[in-house]
Amino acid sequence: MTEPAPSMNRFAPFLEDLADASAAAIMPFFRQSFTVDNKLDAGFDPVTIADRNGETAMRALINSSYPDHGILGEEHGPEKLDAEHVWVLDPIDGTRAFITGLPTWGTLIGLRTAGTPSLGMMVQPFIGERFAGDRQKAWYRGPQGTKTLNARQCSRLEDAAIFTTTPALFGETERSAFDRVEASARLSRYGTDCYAYCMVAAGQGDAVIESGLQAYDIVALVPIIEGAGGVVTTWTGGSPSEGGQILATGDPRLHERLLGELSRAD
Amino acid sequence: MTEPAPSMNRFAPFLEDLADASAAAIMPFFRQSFTVDNKLDAGFDPVTIADRNGETAMRALINSSYPDHGILGEEHGPEKLDAEHVWVLDPIDGTRAFITGLPTWGTLIGLRTAGTPSLGMMVQPFIGERFAGDRQKAWYRGPQGTKTLNARQCSRLEDAAIFTTTPALFGETERSAFDRVEASARLSRYGTDCYAYCMVAAGQGDAVIESGLQAYDIVALVPIIEGAGGVVTTWTGGSPSEGGQILATGDPRLHERLLGELSRAD
Repeated sequence: MTEPAPSMNRFAPFLEDLADASAAAIMPFFRQSFTVDNKLDAGFDPVTIADRNGETAMRALINSSYPDHGILGEEHGPEKLDAEHVWVLDPIDGTRAFITGLPTWGTLIGLRTAGTPSLGMMVQPFIGERFAGDRQKAWYRGPQGTKTLNARQCSRLEDAAIFTTTPALFGETERSAFDRVEASARLSRYGTDCYAYCMVAAGQGDAVIESGLQAYDIVALVPIIEGAGGVVTTWTGGSPSEGGQILATGDPRLHERLLGELSRAD
Repeated sequence: MTEPAPSMNRFAPFLEDLADASAAAIMPFFRQSFTVDNKLDAGFDPVTIADRNGETAMRALINSSYPDHGILGEEHGPEKLDAEHVWVLDPIDGTRAFITGLPTWGTLIGLRTAGTPSLGMMVQPFIGERFAGDRQKAWYRGPQGTKTLNARQCSRLEDAAIFTTTPALFGETERSAFDRVEASARLSRYGTDCYAYCMVAAGQGDAVIESGLQAYDIVALVPIIEGAGGVVTTWTGGSPSEGGQILATGDPRLHERLLGELSRAD
């Protein structure tokens, strides 16, 4: 296994610092008893102390290291969104996994440069693995060592393993488009959150189809998928940097095929 | 954190040997490229080399250590099912998770004594955690240390976190019963496989509702749930030791409530 060459992005080493800081803030609360607040009155949207602590820790580090950078996070208000470099943070993507003790949540740390996702990392501190990318390449460090991430070839939907967090996220038109795609795919897997995107980057799966995402759900993952050779857009082929309906694939040919199915459900 | 007292079950230390042997046989194949066979002509039921290797390794160890014990596994034929002690093995529960690189699969090692699940372990070798139980108690070893597992109190469905692998596993009547339960629950989580049962034992979730299970999908998990203070039966309150429709809860009062909902869907 060859050690990946260092990223040319000058902020790449800072990703590791942010990952360390958020992990230290979050981990004491994983699989412990703690209060779950409801962020929205309607429906269930859990927010934990861990979530807020993780974001606070990352914001403090950004503010002290790069005071001119902007920050867009899930838990606290936006700062300097007109800055050239804006950090886009989701301390716990997969909050439902987190609060039920499942190890498939992750901390998302993204950097948007002049509006484009340029650098990103997904951190899973319980397992001890980090997936990162800078659009040019993507890399991994974890229990299986350090390696370059490469998406796999899979041009046909019939051969594809597809992911979505839950079909319940979809509206009616979206749901029938997804159901049509799912019926043709080789296999589908639910309950995946940010891990799905990392598994596509790692060549373990082929597509992620989701909707209703926020910028902080996706910005960190775009440079990882792109760096591994994959494609991420909205369901109509637009920029994914504001979230919404998201389609990510490892093989650009599969992306084209799925756009054809999904663009009608916009 | 208090170290749990050793199990009174004389086969408990042997669980660790089986876990070590299966992990060594399986792990070289996780997140690698390998052939996926189709076990059934209709539908997709992946079997991997890892699955077969894991079971072969455990069978060899059982045959050499306890030649009079029986074995029921997913991958190879049954041996001596009329023995007093029968090991019930599923080397990779959550094959779809495994083949898509997600760390939520587990190796299930169960012991049925005179027909009753008496001892069991769930092993996740990538994360490095083991959940075990002997009906009297349940215990854990992993990244967060060694501890006793205790299910949590949750008598009301409205407060409950419920798990199922995917609603697609259900037949029509089952599905409407599940949908009714899901609509009243605090939250539901899909894509969980054996982890769901361990999270109920660990007090992180409240109920698992599944159907179409085989004996090797559930026997190992029963002594863990029961050892943590929970209850596992079929949807009509019968013995879970042959699989089928399975209901597991951490709180016996929730079990009673859910039996009322599910028994009509038998």
